[in-house]
Amino acid sequence: MKHRTICILSGGVDSTTLLHQLVAGGDEVLAMSFDYGQRHRKEIRYAARSSRKLGVEHMVVDLAGINALLAGSALTSREMEVPEGSYEDEAMRTTVVPNRNMIMMSLAGAYAVSRKYDRIAIAVHAADHAVYPDCRARFIEQFDIALKLGNYEQVSVYVPFLDWTKARIVRLGLRLGIDYEADTWSCYQGGEEPCGKCGTCLERAEALEEARNE
Amino acid sequence: MKHRTICILSGGVDSTTLLHQLVAGGDEVLAMSFDYGQRHRKEIRYAARSSRKLGVEHMVVDLAGINALLAGSALTSREMEVPEGSYEDEAMRTTVVPNRNMIMMSLAGAYAVSRKYDRIAIAVHAADHAVYPDCRARFIEQFDIALKLGNYEQVSVYVPFLDWTKARIVRLGLRLGIDYEADTWSCYQGGEEPCGKCGTCLERAEALEEARNE
Repeated sequence: MKHRTICILSGGVDSTTLLHQLVAGGDEVLAMSFDYGQRHRKEIRYAARSSRKLGVEHMVVDLAGINALLAGSALTSREMEVPEGSYEDEAMRTTVVPNRNMIMMSLAGAYAVSRKYDRIAIAVHAADHAVYPDCRARFIEQFDIALKLGNYEQVSVYVPFLDWTKARIVRLGLRLGIDYEADTWSCYQGGEEPCGKCGTCLERAEALEEARNE
Repeated sequence: MKHRTICILSGGVDSTTLLHQLVAGGDEVLAMSFDYGQRHRKEIRYAARSSRKLGVEHMVVDLAGINALLAGSALTSREMEVPEGSYEDEAMRTTVVPNRNMIMMSLAGAYAVSRKYDRIAIAVHAADHAVYPDCRARFIEQFDIALKLGNYEQVSVYVPFLDWTKARIVRLGLRLGIDYEADTWSCYQGGEEPCGKCGTCLERAEALEEARNE
């Protein structure tokens, strides 16, 4: 049976690859991006571009009204500095938007229920686990159960990259023909050009390098 | 230890009683209402009034931007008729906003994490269980686990009325001095006066009657 899948799409490397994978796999796909006032909002334009290229409907959910709720994170507050350096640093904790995946999956789940999609897909992967508790398998599994218990319609959470390295994701993407330079955006700073210094810039460069050298 | 609690407050009988209970119990309380474009938005004014009376900070979270997500429910769409009659009728299913409690608790949970509240309280009760799967103990328990797994800060879900009848809630409220006529709003229609015919009007009248006759 063909799946009807809502793909949570940031416009970065991981979720863009997920979108391509779902389309290649024959799913009926809706791409959903969340505008939560992130500094790197630019990524949403990349999400729109990939969706257009693939002929997938793209929906941007405006969470501006709940910005107050997300205060206290470097991704929403301009007063705080985005820390430079690798994700491994303790300082990267300030990029955690509290409960972000739960919020996005709750909203995507609501839409799935009302429009009869049978799964929501999110591109969490192994490298996220150390810093972000809401990217870990245990959280995803519990959320999946709660989503099924909370609704008559049974919507599943699909996380094919859960145990994948970023390099493995990029290898898949290159096989699927993704032009990562042109079609994705990762930098947390959201400037004209990627800063090349923040955790996500470093991680992205490393994964592309690793995947291409194989 | 004193709890710091976010009370999800619709302005109806149950959540208003919960707010009073939390304040009476000595919690440091923030009341949080959600404006999701519900036809009975009037209830938010009642939520504000109760908060003011109790000297509790009241926050209204604007979910207008995600209204599209909630389409297909009689509570958000003016094209659909609000069914009359009791909650027991199959027709009342159309008042289910998909995944509503999960969305509200995810957002309240995010705010709790960022502002160091240690619990979120929601007034689900026994009479809700038949119609609303996201009011059942199994859902609440799973959500509580997911919320704890998804964040470094451990925020609990507090549901003191989970197994209570509405009449029992009203009895508590009367003891706490709540003037239900003046301070709460239930009707789904949101007209000048309660319609007296929708499920929540009928349920409310029954509970008040039962509580007063004891």
